[in-house]
Amino acid sequence: MADFQENLNKYADLAVRVGANVQKGQILVVNAPVQSAEFVRMITEKAYNAGASEVRVNWNDEKITRLKYEHAADEVFSESPKWYAGEMTELVEKGAAILHVLAENPDLLKGIKQERIVANQKARGQAMTKYRAYQQADKFSWCLIAVPSPEWADKVFPDAPQEERVQMLWDAIFHTVRVDQDNPVEAWTNHLETLDHKSKVLNEKKYKKLHYIAPGTDLTIELPEGHIWAGGESFNEKGHSFVANMPTEEVFTAPLKTGVNGYVSSTKPLSYGGNIIDRFTISFENGRIVDVKAEEGQKVLEHLVEMDEGSHYLGEVALVPHQSPISDSNILYFNTLFDENASNHLAIGSAYAFCLEGGKEMTQEQLTDHGLNTSVTHVDFMIGSSEMDIFGVMADGTEEPVFKKGNWAF
Amino acid sequence: MADFQENLNKYADLAVRVGANVQKGQILVVNAPVQSAEFVRMITEKAYNAGASEVRVNWNDEKITRLKYEHAADEVFSESPKWYAGEMTELVEKGAAILHVLAENPDLLKGIKQERIVANQKARGQAMTKYRAYQQADKFSWCLIAVPSPEWADKVFPDAPQEERVQMLWDAIFHTVRVDQDNPVEAWTNHLETLDHKSKVLNEKKYKKLHYIAPGTDLTIELPEGHIWAGGESFNEKGHSFVANMPTEEVFTAPLKTGVNGYVSSTKPLSYGGNIIDRFTISFENGRIVDVKAEEGQKVLEHLVEMDEGSHYLGEVALVPHQSPISDSNILYFNTLFDENASNHLAIGSAYAFCLEGGKEMTQEQLTDHGLNTSVTHVDFMIGSSEMDIFGVMADGTEEPVFKKGNWAF
Repeated sequence: MADFQENLNKYADLAVRVGANVQKGQILVVNAPVQSAEFVRMITEKAYNAGASEVRVNWNDEKITRLKYEHAADEVFSESPKWYAGEMTELVEKGAAILHVLAENPDLLKGIKQERIVANQKARGQAMTKYRAYQQADKFSWCLIAVPSPEWADKVFPDAPQEERVQMLWDAIFHTVRVDQDNPVEAWTNHLETLDHKSKVLNEKKYKKLHYIAPGTDLTIELPEGHIWAGGESFNEKGHSFVANMPTEEVFTAPLKTGVNGYVSSTKPLSYGGNIIDRFTISFENGRIVDVKAEEGQKVLEHLVEMDEGSHYLGEVALVPHQSPISDSNILYFNTLFDENASNHLAIGSAYAFCLEGGKEMTQEQLTDHGLNTSVTHVDFMIGSSEMDIFGVMADGTEEPVFKKGNWAF
Repeated sequence: MADFQENLNKYADLAVRVGANVQKGQILVVNAPVQSAEFVRMITEKAYNAGASEVRVNWNDEKITRLKYEHAADEVFSESPKWYAGEMTELVEKGAAILHVLAENPDLLKGIKQERIVANQKARGQAMTKYRAYQQADKFSWCLIAVPSPEWADKVFPDAPQEERVQMLWDAIFHTVRVDQDNPVEAWTNHLETLDHKSKVLNEKKYKKLHYIAPGTDLTIELPEGHIWAGGESFNEKGHSFVANMPTEEVFTAPLKTGVNGYVSSTKPLSYGGNIIDRFTISFENGRIVDVKAEEGQKVLEHLVEMDEGSHYLGEVALVPHQSPISDSNILYFNTLFDENASNHLAIGSAYAFCLEGGKEMTQEQLTDHGLNTSVTHVDFMIGSSEMDIFGVMADGTEEPVFKKGNWAF
C-alpha cells in the first residue's frame, strides 16, 4: 500500500503540474466522482501548493445519475443546465483551469431510453456552446484523467478475481500515464517532445488527403488548407502549456468537413453516453454520414449521428501507431481516453479551432468558411489495427505511405 | 450491521416522507457531504419512489473546505456565490424541497482567520437574501438532518474507544429522531401533535413579555402583537406539511426586535462557523446587543454580532423543557440542531415571518414595521438549564410561571 500511496501522490502531482499545469493565482475547477474524494483532496492540496487562488470541486455520483435516468420526469432531460454552464463559462473567462477526473462505468446507462440520453446531451451541448468554443480554441487549460471505479474495473478485467480488479485497473492506469516510472514529470517531457516531433513532420508534409485501407475500411479524408497537426502539449491564451488528455499518444488535425468519402469500420468498442457501440461501419459521401451499421448499439449510434447537423460530419483525424504503450498492454478499457490512445481514430462532431492556421482567433463562421465542422458533440471512435495502411496524397497527386501495417511508415 | 442498515433505511424514509415530505412531481435538492454518499443514494431512491420529478445533490467536502480556508486567496471569501444562490432561488420558486444532510466537524475552522469566515458568511448571506426570505415565510419545504463524521464523533465521545465513536453517534442520532422506535413515522405523528398542543396553549395566552431568571440570566423579552408560537410541523405555500428540523423539541416565536432588555448566559457551547463559542453572556438594551463576554471564542462572537445591523438583535425565542429526550441523554453534540433541542434557546438575527399573524404575505418592510428583525444571519444559542424560571407577563401586567426549574409550569 505504501507503493500505491506513492503512485497516487505522483499521479496527483502530474495532473496538477503537467496536465492542468496550475499557475500562481489561478482557479482550478475539478469535476470528480464522490468516491475519488481522497485523490481529489490530494489534488486540491497540490494545487494550492502550486499557488492556486481557489480550488472548486463539482462532485458527481454515477449511482444517483443512474437513478435519475431511471426515474426522473421526462422533461428533466431536456432542461438546460444554464447555471452550471454560466458558471463554468465565467470561470474559464477568468482563466480557470479545468481538471476532469473520470471513473465511468461503460454500461452506466444500459437499458435507459435513448430519448432521455439524447435530450440530455443536446441540452448540455447547447448550454455549453460558448465554453466548448473556448475549449476548442485552447483559450483555457484543461485536462482529462481517470481513476478506477469497481463497475469499470469489472468491465475491463471480468476474468480476474473480483477483489483484485480495481487494483489491476489502478496499475494499468499508472502505467499508461507513466506514473510507474522513476520521474514521471521528466518522462512526460520526453514523451511530449516525441509527439511534437511527429506533428512537425506531418505539418511539413502538408498532405492534401489521407487514404485509409484496412479490412472493412476504404476511406479518403481531405485535409483543409492550413491544417495543423497537434499532439501532446497545448498552450492556452496566456501561453501556459497543458496536456488535455492523460494518457495521450496521438497526433491529430481537423478534416475538411465536406472532403470525406468511403467507409470505415470500428476496431474497438465505443463507450458512449453510458452505452456500448461495437463492430460498426460508417459510410460517407462528401463528408456527410450517409449510412451507419452497428452489430451492437445501432440505435445509440443513429442517435449520436442525428444529434445535430454537425454530428453528420467528422471533426478530428488522429494517428496513433498500433505499437504503442496502451495498445501493447492488450487491455480494452471501454473508455475512450484510453482506447483512442491505442488506435488510429476519428471523431464525429466539432473540430478544434487550433488545428487551423489562425483558427484560434477566428469566429465560428470563419472556421466554417475554412472547412471546419461545428457541432454540440465531439465523439472519438477507434479504427486502427495492425492491418491498416494509410497513404498521404500530396498536392500534386503523388502518394506516399504514412502508416504501414498499423505503424508509422517513416 | 443488519440492524444498522435497517435503521439507516428508516432514517432515509423519515427524511423523505416526514422531513421534506416529498410530493409527486416535486424536485428534491439534497445538500450533503461526499462521505454520506451511500445514505444520499438511499434518500434519492426513496424520493423517486415518492414521485419526485428530479433529485439533485449539491455535494460538499469539509477537508476541501478547510484547505480553502487555509490556502485560498483573500478575495475568494468575499465573492458572491451568485450562481449557487440563483439556482437555489429558482428551484424553490419552482416548488423544490430542500434537504440538508449535516456532518459538521465542530472545530473545522479552528485557527482560521476570522476575517475569512466573516467575509464568506456575509457574501453568502447577502447572495441568499431572497432564498432566506422565502424560507422564513415557509414558501418551500426544507429539512435539516445529520449524519456522523469521524471528526464530529471524536468531539462528542472523546473518552470512548476510537473505533466505536462513529457508531455511538449514529445510535444517538437514531434515538433523537425516533428511528429506534418500531414505527418512526407514527412516533413522529404523535410527537408533532404534542408540540402543536404546546404552541396552541401559548398562542391562547398572548403573553406581552417573557421574563427569564437563572444564574447569569435576568432577561425580559417583549413579544410583538400578533406573534404566533410554532413548533414541529410547518406548512409550505401549497399547504404540504414538512418538519424543518429533525430532531425538534422546541416551540418558538419571534421577539419584538426592540423589546429585549437585561442579560442572558449560555448554558452549552455554541458551534458556529467551524469554531466553538463557550461560557458567554450577552447584554441587551431596547433589543440591541450592547455587550458580549465569552470565556472561549470572544472574537468569533463579536464578529457574529457585527455581521450586519440585524445581527445586533434577536430573531427567535424558543422553549424546550430541560427534561426532554435529547437533554436526558446528557450528550453534548456541539451541533446546534441537537443542542438547541435540549435547551431553551434564542437566536441572533432574522425572525421567521410565519411567527406573525399574516406575516407570510408581508414584505420585509411590513415585517419590520411589525417589530420583526431581519439580518443575513440566524444563529441559535442555548440558555436553558434545570435552574431556569420563566414568567409570562400578561397585557394587564399580571405574571404567571411558564417554566419552573427548567420545565413547563403547566
